[in-house]
Amino acid sequence: MATGKLLVCGLALFLTIKSNLLHSQQFTISFQRPSDCGVEQFYDISSQSCVKCGPNQSSSATGLSCECVTGFRVLATNGASITCQQCPLEKPVLTEDGYGCILCPGSLTEQGTCQCPSGSILVERDVQGNPLEEARCEVCNGAEPALSAPDSYGDRCQRCQASLINTSQSCMCGSNILAGGLCFPPNNLPTAVNPNVNYAELVSQHNRVYTNLTACQALGNMCVMNMHSFSSVANDACGLYNTIFRATAALGSTQDISYWRANLPWLYYGDQPGLANRVLQTEPLPTGFSFKGRNRNTDINLVAAVYNARGDFLQWEKVGGNNLQLCPDTARRQEAAYTFGTAYQETCVLSVADLLRVYAEPLFYDVFVDLSRGEDRRLLPLPTRNLNQEYNRKFINRGESNLNDWYLSRRVLLVDTLSGREKSLGSLPKVIRIASSIRIGFQLVPGTQKGQVFPPLLSVTYSDVVITAPNTQTVSVLFAVEYEMDQTEAHMKTDIALGVLGGVSVLYSLVKTASWKRRIGSPLIDMETVLKFLLFYAGDLANVFFFITVGTGLYWLIFYKAQHFVSVLLPLPGLQEERFVAYVGCAFALKTVQFLHKLIQQLSVDIFFIDWERPRGKANKTIQGNGIGEAKHDPSPVSIWRTYFVANEWNEIQTIRKISPTFQIMAVLFLLEVVGFSSLALRDPWSDLQRPPQSYSPPYSLTLRYGLAATLWLCIGLLQIIFFTAFHERFVEDKIRQFVDLCSISNISVLLLSHRCFGYYIHGRSVHGHADTNMEEMNINLKREAESLCGQRGLLPNTDTQTFQISITSRLRLQYDRILEPLSRRNGPSRLVDAASGHPFDQSTKAYHTMNRFLGSVIDHAHRDMEYVVRDKLFFERVIGMEFMEPMDKSIFYNDESHSFSDVLFYGNEATLLIFDTLFFCVVDLGAQSFILAGVLTYFQQMIFRLIRNGIGRRNLANKTLVDQRFLI
Amino acid sequence: MATGKLLVCGLALFLTIKSNLLHSQQFTISFQRPSDCGVEQFYDISSQSCVKCGPNQSSSATGLSCECVTGFRVLATNGASITCQQCPLEKPVLTEDGYGCILCPGSLTEQGTCQCPSGSILVERDVQGNPLEEARCEVCNGAEPALSAPDSYGDRCQRCQASLINTSQSCMCGSNILAGGLCFPPNNLPTAVNPNVNYAELVSQHNRVYTNLTACQALGNMCVMNMHSFSSVANDACGLYNTIFRATAALGSTQDISYWRANLPWLYYGDQPGLANRVLQTEPLPTGFSFKGRNRNTDINLVAAVYNARGDFLQWEKVGGNNLQLCPDTARRQEAAYTFGTAYQETCVLSVADLLRVYAEPLFYDVFVDLSRGEDRRLLPLPTRNLNQEYNRKFINRGESNLNDWYLSRRVLLVDTLSGREKSLGSLPKVIRIASSIRIGFQLVPGTQKGQVFPPLLSVTYSDVVITAPNTQTVSVLFAVEYEMDQTEAHMKTDIALGVLGGVSVLYSLVKTASWKRRIGSPLIDMETVLKFLLFYAGDLANVFFFITVGTGLYWLIFYKAQHFVSVLLPLPGLQEERFVAYVGCAFALKTVQFLHKLIQQLSVDIFFIDWERPRGKANKTIQGNGIGEAKHDPSPVSIWRTYFVANEWNEIQTIRKISPTFQIMAVLFLLEVVGFSSLALRDPWSDLQRPPQSYSPPYSLTLRYGLAATLWLCIGLLQIIFFTAFHERFVEDKIRQFVDLCSISNISVLLLSHRCFGYYIHGRSVHGHADTNMEEMNINLKREAESLCGQRGLLPNTDTQTFQISITSRLRLQYDRILEPLSRRNGPSRLVDAASGHPFDQSTKAYHTMNRFLGSVIDHAHRDMEYVVRDKLFFERVIGMEFMEPMDKSIFYNDESHSFSDVLFYGNEATLLIFDTLFFCVVDLGAQSFILAGVLTYFQQMIFRLIRNGIGRRNLANKTLVDQRFLI
Repeated sequence: MATGKLLVCGLALFLTIKSNLLHSQQFTISFQRPSDCGVEQFYDISSQSCVKCGPNQSSSATGLSCECVTGFRVLATNGASITCQQCPLEKPVLTEDGYGCILCPGSLTEQGTCQCPSGSILVERDVQGNPLEEARCEVCNGAEPALSAPDSYGDRCQRCQASLINTSQSCMCGSNILAGGLCFPPNNLPTAVNPNVNYAELVSQHNRVYTNLTACQALGNMCVMNMHSFSSVANDACGLYNTIFRATAALGSTQDISYWRANLPWLYYGDQPGLANRVLQTEPLPTGFSFKGRNRNTDINLVAAVYNARGDFLQWEKVGGNNLQLCPDTARRQEAAYTFGTAYQETCVLSVADLLRVYAEPLFYDVFVDLSRGEDRRLLPLPTRNLNQEYNRKFINRGESNLNDWYLSRRVLLVDTLSGREKSLGSLPKVIRIASSIRIGFQLVPGTQKGQVFPPLLSVTYSDVVITAPNTQTVSVLFAVEYEMDQTEAHMKTDIALGVLGGVSVLYSLVKTASWKRRIGSPLIDMETVLKFLLFYAGDLANVFFFITVGTGLYWLIFYKAQHFVSVLLPLPGLQEERFVAYVGCAFALKTVQFLHKLIQQLSVDIFFIDWERPRGKANKTIQGNGIGEAKHDPSPVSIWRTYFVANEWNEIQTIRKISPTFQIMAVLFLLEVVGFSSLALRDPWSDLQRPPQSYSPPYSLTLRYGLAATLWLCIGLLQIIFFTAFHERFVEDKIRQFVDLCSISNISVLLLSHRCFGYYIHGRSVHGHADTNMEEMNINLKREAESLCGQRGLLPNTDTQTFQISITSRLRLQYDRILEPLSRRNGPSRLVDAASGHPFDQSTKAYHTMNRFLGSVIDHAHRDMEYVVRDKLFFERVIGMEFMEPMDKSIFYNDESHSFSDVLFYGNEATLLIFDTLFFCVVDLGAQSFILAGVLTYFQQMIFRLIRNGIGRRNLANKTLVDQRFLI
Repeated sequence: MATGKLLVCGLALFLTIKSNLLHSQQFTISFQRPSDCGVEQFYDISSQSCVKCGPNQSSSATGLSCECVTGFRVLATNGASITCQQCPLEKPVLTEDGYGCILCPGSLTEQGTCQCPSGSILVERDVQGNPLEEARCEVCNGAEPALSAPDSYGDRCQRCQASLINTSQSCMCGSNILAGGLCFPPNNLPTAVNPNVNYAELVSQHNRVYTNLTACQALGNMCVMNMHSFSSVANDACGLYNTIFRATAALGSTQDISYWRANLPWLYYGDQPGLANRVLQTEPLPTGFSFKGRNRNTDINLVAAVYNARGDFLQWEKVGGNNLQLCPDTARRQEAAYTFGTAYQETCVLSVADLLRVYAEPLFYDVFVDLSRGEDRRLLPLPTRNLNQEYNRKFINRGESNLNDWYLSRRVLLVDTLSGREKSLGSLPKVIRIASSIRIGFQLVPGTQKGQVFPPLLSVTYSDVVITAPNTQTVSVLFAVEYEMDQTEAHMKTDIALGVLGGVSVLYSLVKTASWKRRIGSPLIDMETVLKFLLFYAGDLANVFFFITVGTGLYWLIFYKAQHFVSVLLPLPGLQEERFVAYVGCAFALKTVQFLHKLIQQLSVDIFFIDWERPRGKANKTIQGNGIGEAKHDPSPVSIWRTYFVANEWNEIQTIRKISPTFQIMAVLFLLEVVGFSSLALRDPWSDLQRPPQSYSPPYSLTLRYGLAATLWLCIGLLQIIFFTAFHERFVEDKIRQFVDLCSISNISVLLLSHRCFGYYIHGRSVHGHADTNMEEMNINLKREAESLCGQRGLLPNTDTQTFQISITSRLRLQYDRILEPLSRRNGPSRLVDAASGHPFDQSTKAYHTMNRFLGSVIDHAHRDMEYVVRDKLFFERVIGMEFMEPMDKSIFYNDESHSFSDVLFYGNEATLLIFDTLFFCVVDLGAQSFILAGVLTYFQQMIFRLIRNGIGRRNLANKTLVDQRFLI
C-alpha cells in the first residue's frame, strides 16, 4: 500500500493548482487548531491552517475535511477537495455513502438521509450492489428460525442477541423484563438494584477516509523515517518528496513560507549557503524571558502537530510531560525542562521490549514555539538539525564548527518500530530506530537586556537497534535543554583585566624585589634576585587570578540569579568553562608557591631575646673580698625563667591567626550544606535555598560553585577578622598585645631579623628596672604601672612605642653573625670541628651571654659605631612596603604601632592564608563537586601546615634563641 | 444495561449446577494463564483456571471461551457454556454467525464456512433476515452507476475505493497500475520507490461476545466500585453479590478455596471471628527471603489478573512498573518497591485532568503472590484490607488495634472515573474515586531464621474527589511497601538489660557516694548526699542508656544489613522507634547532667603551687651586719617567674583532650558523607556505600542512623585515643608528662584538692636544690639529670614517683582553709571588712607565702601533727575508686603512676566527654536528620564548653594560686 499512497500524493498535487505569492522570510505561522476553523472551513493538515470549503460544502464532524451540505452529493474527489452536486428533484435524498441520490419511502434523518422505523433496515442497493431508484425499508424477521434484528448501522438484518433468544425464543422480549438491552424472565431475581454503573454501547465511528490529504503526509513521514536523507541517484522517499517539491514549484508556498509547499509537509529548509545562520541567528523571538518581577516569564511553550505513519493528523499537543522525553519521570521533574534557564538533562536506559510495546506505532512531531499572546496566536517552527541526515551517503550535519554547513529540516520521530518490520505488521521488527539524543538549544541574542533569544534549535540523533533479544536489549536515550550565550565578550573582558592587572603586578613585584634587595643589604642582581622576583610575582599574579576568578564567579552568581530580564546565560560546561577552571588552577598553583615561600621565610627567621635584667647581687661583689670561699657564686644569677616564659609564649603565638580556621570551615559548611546556599550554584534561574527533594535537580555550574564558595569563604573570613579585631582583641584577648606587654613586664626585648638587614624590635625593658623578683614585688610593680606611677615603656623616653621595624647596618649584622658563628658551625655538617671546640652547652651559653650583652649595649647606644636613630616611616614607605633610606652608618628604627612584627607569624599573613585556604577549598570542590570533602581536606591541610609551622618554627626558635626546646611547650 | 448484566450473572449461576468438594484452608491456587490451556480447554476467567470444553467443542482464538468444532453449530448458550450440534447432512456447513447450518454453493473456508470467489459476496439470509436454504455467491456490480465491490467481511456490496473510481471510472484498475490496493494512471510518477513502510489494513476484530461469563465479574466490579460495602437492608451490588453467593452455596468452591464460588469472582474472605488472624498470621510463604549469598532472593513477585469494568478478563500482568503505582517515576526507582526489605514510599500529587484522560476506564486487579518454582506454578492471593469498606454504614476496617476486627476482601480498583458519570459515558463524571493510599505490608514470622514471611496484606484507602474544575484540581496519592516484625521480644530484652544494668548502676553510684562522703570527710547523710547520689546515678544511668542504645543500634545495623536469610526487620518509624528515641533522649539528658556536674567540680578545684626555692642570698644575711643601709633588700628575692611558668602551663592543659575533637568531627563527617557510610542507614538490605543518584532512595531508619553515627564516633574516638596514647604521647609530645617534668625542673610542687580531704600531689622538688638560675646552670642541671648524675625525683628517697593521690586529715584541711580565709573573705560579698583588713595585694602575697611555707613544711614532715604516710593503693581500692583507710591521724599519700590528677582536667575525663559528644551529635542528627548540621553544632558545643572551662578555670586558678590572671595567657 505504501507505494500507492505516496503516488497519490503526487497525483493530488498535480491536480490541485493554486496560486500563491512568495512572501518574506518571516518564519512564524499563525497558530490554528481544528476547533478554530469556521463551519465553512476545514483544517488542512498539511498547511496546518483553516481552508475554506468549496461551494455547497461544510466541514465534517472531525473538521479535517469538507463534506457536501444536506441535499448535495459528492460528484468527484480530487485530492484534498471534493465537488458537490445538488440531488435532482426526483431523487432528492442523499444515499448513506454520500455519493448517490435516492428517493425515500419515509422520513429523513438529521443528516438528510433516509430513515426507517425501528426494527426495519434501510436498503439502498440490491444484493449485487446496484443502486435502487427508491430506497426500501425492510422489517427484519424476529421469529424462529430467522431470529434476526437490524444491526447497529441499521442496514442489515442479523441474528439478534442471545439473551433475547434464550429468554423468549424470539427477538422480542415480550412479557419478560427488558433491561439494559437484555431480556430477563420476570420475578427471577431482585430487581431493585442501584444502577451505579452505566454502560453505553461503544459504537465504532464511521471513518470518512481522506486518504488523498494524508498521502503526502505519509510520504513525508517515510522520508523522516529515512532520516531526511537522499542522494542524487536513488529514488527513495525523500528523493520522491524532492521531486514533487521541485515539480510543484508553481503551486506556491503555504503559510508564506517558501519551503512549505501547498499540500506537502514541510521537511527541509532550503540549501542556500548561510541559510542555517539566517534561520538561527537573525531574528529573535518576539517575547523576551524574564526570571523575576511582574513580567516574569520563564515558560517555554512548545506545541507539536502530531501525525501517525499513515499521515493522519492526530492532534495538537503541548510539548511537555513525556512526548519528547522518552525517559519516564515524575511530571514535576519533567516539566522543569520547559522552564527557561534551567539546564535540563536526563538520560536513562530503556528496555527494547517496552519500546516495542509502547511505541507500536511511530508518531511524527512538527514542533513549534507558541508565541501566542492573547488573541494573536502565532507559532514559530523549530528548526531541526538531524545528525543522521545524509546526502549522497555522507553525514552532512555532524560538523560542530560551521553553522552554515548544516541542512536544517523539520519533523521528528521518536521511535520507529515500523519500518524495520518485514512482510507483515505482526512480525517483530528486525531493527528499530530511536531518537537517542534530543537536544533543544537556546542561544541568547548578544547584548540583549530584554531576555531575547534566537529561535531554538532542535538537534536529534537517531540510533538503530538491531533486534536480537528484545527482552534483554536496552538502549540509552538522552533529552536535554541547553542555554548558551556568546562568551567572547566576557572572555575578552577577562583577558583585558588579566593583562592590565598582570602588568601592574609586575611593577609591584619589582618594587618588592627592590625592597628585598635593600633589606638584605645587597645591591647585586644575581640569579637569586631573579628567583625572588619570580616568587614575588607568583604571589601577585595569584592574587590577580584569584580576584578575577572570584569576580567572574560572583558576576555570574549575581547577574544570572538576580536578573529580571535575562541578559546573561551561564557558560556551558566543557569548552566555555575550561578557561575559567584553568585560571582557578593558576591562582591556586601560584598561591601555593607564595604560601610555601612565606612559610620557609618564617621558618628561618632570626630571633633573639635580650634580657635586660642585671644581677641584684652586684652590690655584693664589692664585699666579695671578705674571703668566704663560696662567695664566688654569690652574684646570684639572673633567672632564665623569664626568657623561658617569653620564648614559650612566642612559640605559642607562631600559628595563631586573625580568624579561627576551623570555625571558618564549619560556618562555610553550615551555610552551604545545611542552610542550603549550595542550591544557588544550580544551573537554574531560582534563588531558593531549600529545594523540595522531589523537584528536578539540574547540574551544578562550576563557575557558580566557585563564585559561591569563594565569596562565602571570603565573607565569613572578613566577618571573623572584623569580629576578632574589633571585638575579641579589644575586649577579650589580644595575643600579640599580650606578648608585647609580657616582654615589658619580664624585662626582655625581642630582636627579630626577617631579612639580613631588616627586622623588628620589641622593646621590653621593664620600667621598674627589675622583673626577676617575687610575687609581692611583681604585684606592686603591676599596680604602680596601672596607676601610672612609673615611666613609660617606650624605647625613647616619654614614649609608648615599644615595637619597631629596624633597618640595621651591615656592620651590626656582621657582628651579630660573628657571635652566632660557633653555633652555626655546630649545626653544620662537619662534626670534627665540634669535638675540638669544646662542649656545645658552653658555647651556647657563652654565645647567649655575648649576644645579650652586645645587643643590650647596642640598644643602649653604648656602641659608638653601631648607632641607630628612631624615626617615623613615611606614608609612601608604608604603602609600598620599602624603606627609602639605606642604613649606611646608622641603623634606623621605624616606629611601628601596628605590631608589624607579626609578619613573621601566621597572624600577620592572614590575607595570604585566607586566600590560600579559599583556593584550596574551591579547587578540591571543583575537582570532586563535594563541599564536605573540600571542607575536610581543607581542615587537614590547615592542620598539617600548622604542625609544620609549629614544629620547625619551634626548632628554629630553640636554635636561634638558645632556649632549650623542652621549655617550648 | 448494568442491571441487566448483573442479573444475567445470577441467572447463569442458577442454571449451572456443579458439585464441588470443600477443601482445606490452604489459600494458594495454581497459576494458569490462557496460554497454558489445552486445545479442548478454555480459560475460565472467574476461577482463573483452565476448564474443559464441552463435547464437540474447542477453545476459541482468545482462549477465553469454547466454540463448536468445524461442522457443529451452537444449539444453545447457557451462561458460560454452549451446546453444539452437528449440522445435518443436507445442510452440512456452518453459517457465519455460528448458529445455523446451510448448504454451500462453492468451496469452504478453513473455519468451515462457505467461501465465495473474489469479487463476490456470500449471502446467507434474505433481506428480511430469513435464513436461506442454500447460500448464494453474488457478484458485485463494479460498473457505473453501481461502482460496488465486496466489503471487508465479504458479505455486502458497497461503493468501491475512490482512487479506483477516479482513475478508471469503475471498480477495476484495468490497464492502470494497482499498488497497495490503490489504482494509478500509468507513467505518471516515478515508480521505482523503495517501499520502506508497509501498512496493512487494520481489521477490527469480530468480538465473539461471552457476556454471561463476564456478567458475574461485572457484578463483582460494581461491588468493588461500591467499596465492598453492603448493609443488611439495601440491595446494592455487594448485597446482590452476597445474595448470589449464599444462594449458590451448593455450587461449591473454585480452586479449593471455600470463599471462591464457581463462576463468581472472589470478593470476600468469610466473616468468621479470627479469620483475618488465621489468613494473615498462620502459614508463611513457602520460600524465605535472603539478602545475600548463593540463595539470595529479594524479589517480590506479584502478579495480577486484570479485568475491565464490563468484567472482561484482560490479561495477567506482573505487578511492577506502574500498574499499582499511580505516581510516575523512572522504572528503576519503581522497581525498588518490589525488592524485599526496601522500605518503599512514594507520594505525589496528580492532576485530576490527567487521571480522567489516562484512566478513562477503570481496571480491576486481583493481586497474587507468585510462588512459582520451576514447573510448579502456584499463586497465593493477597488478602486486601479495604479501609473504606462499610457494613451497615460503619467503617469496619479502620481499627488498627485488633486484627480480628478486619474483614478481608479481594480485588482492588485504582481509579474509578466511571461510576460518577451521570446519564451518558460521554459526560464528565461528577465525582471520581481514587485509591489514594495503597500499602503492602509484610510481617516476618517470629523467630524465623530462614526469612519466612506471612502472606502480605494489601491495605487500600480510597478517596472521592468531587469534580468541579478538573484542570486545576489535584489529588495526592501514596504507594508504600512496609516490612514489619514483632518487636516485643527485642523490647523485652532491652527492658531486662535496662533493669539489670540500672540496678548495678545504683550500687555503683552508692559506692561513689560513699567514696565522696569519705573524701569530703563528712559522715553525715544529708540532702547534699542525696543530691550527690542522684548526680552520680545520672551519670551511671546515662552510660547504661547509652550502651543499650548503641548496642541496639549496632545490633540492627549488623543483623539487618549483614544477614543472609532474613531473620530481623527494622523497627518501623513511629511507634516501634519511639521507645528507642526516648532512651537516646534519656541518655543525652542524663549525660548532660553528669557533664555539667563534672565541669562545675573542675571549675572549683583547689590548687596551690608550692615553691621549694629558697633565696640564694641566705648566706649573705650573716654579712648584713656590715652596716650597708641597702643591704636589708639583700636576700635576693626568689623569682616568681617559675611559678608563673607552671601556672601558665597548667592553664593551658586544662582543656587538652586525649583526642582532637575537631579531627573527630571531620573524620566522622568524611566517613559518613564523603565515603558514604550514611547509605548504611537506609531502610534497605544493601550495604553499598555509594548509590547511583538515579536509584530509589528509601527513607532513613533512625535506629540505624543512631547506631551508625554512634559507632563511627566511638570507633574513631578510640582509634584517636590509641594513636595519641600509644604513639603521639610516647614519641611526639605528652602534655601531662611534660607538666610533671616541668614541675620537677622548676622546683615547684602542685597540690590539688578536688574534694575537701582528697586530692592530688605532684612532687616537683628539684633534684638540684635550685632552679631559679641562669641558662648555664639550667643546661648543666638538665645534662646532669640526663646522665643520671643526680638523685631521683621521687618524694621518697630513691624513688621516681612524683604523683600521688592524697587523703588528707581534716586538721590539715582546716589549717589550709584558715590560711586562705582572708582571701575568701575578700571574694565574699561584704566589702566593709575589706577596707579594714588592709591592702588586698598584701593579704594575697602574705597568704601565698604562709601557704607556701606551711605546705612545704608539711611535705618536709616538719609538722608533727600533720604527718603523712606514703603507700600503694590496694587493687580493689583502685577498682572501685574509694579509699578504705580513713585519714584520721595521718594523711595518706597513695602512689599514683598514672597521673590521675588529670581527673580535674578535661584530659582525665575523656570517656565522659566522648560519650557526651557522641550523644550530642546523635541527638542533633535524630532531630534534624543531617549529619552536617550535627557536626557543625557539635563543633560549636565543644567550642563553647572549652571557652567556659578555660575562662572560668583560669579565674579559679588565679584565685586559688594567687597568680595574677595576666600571666595565664
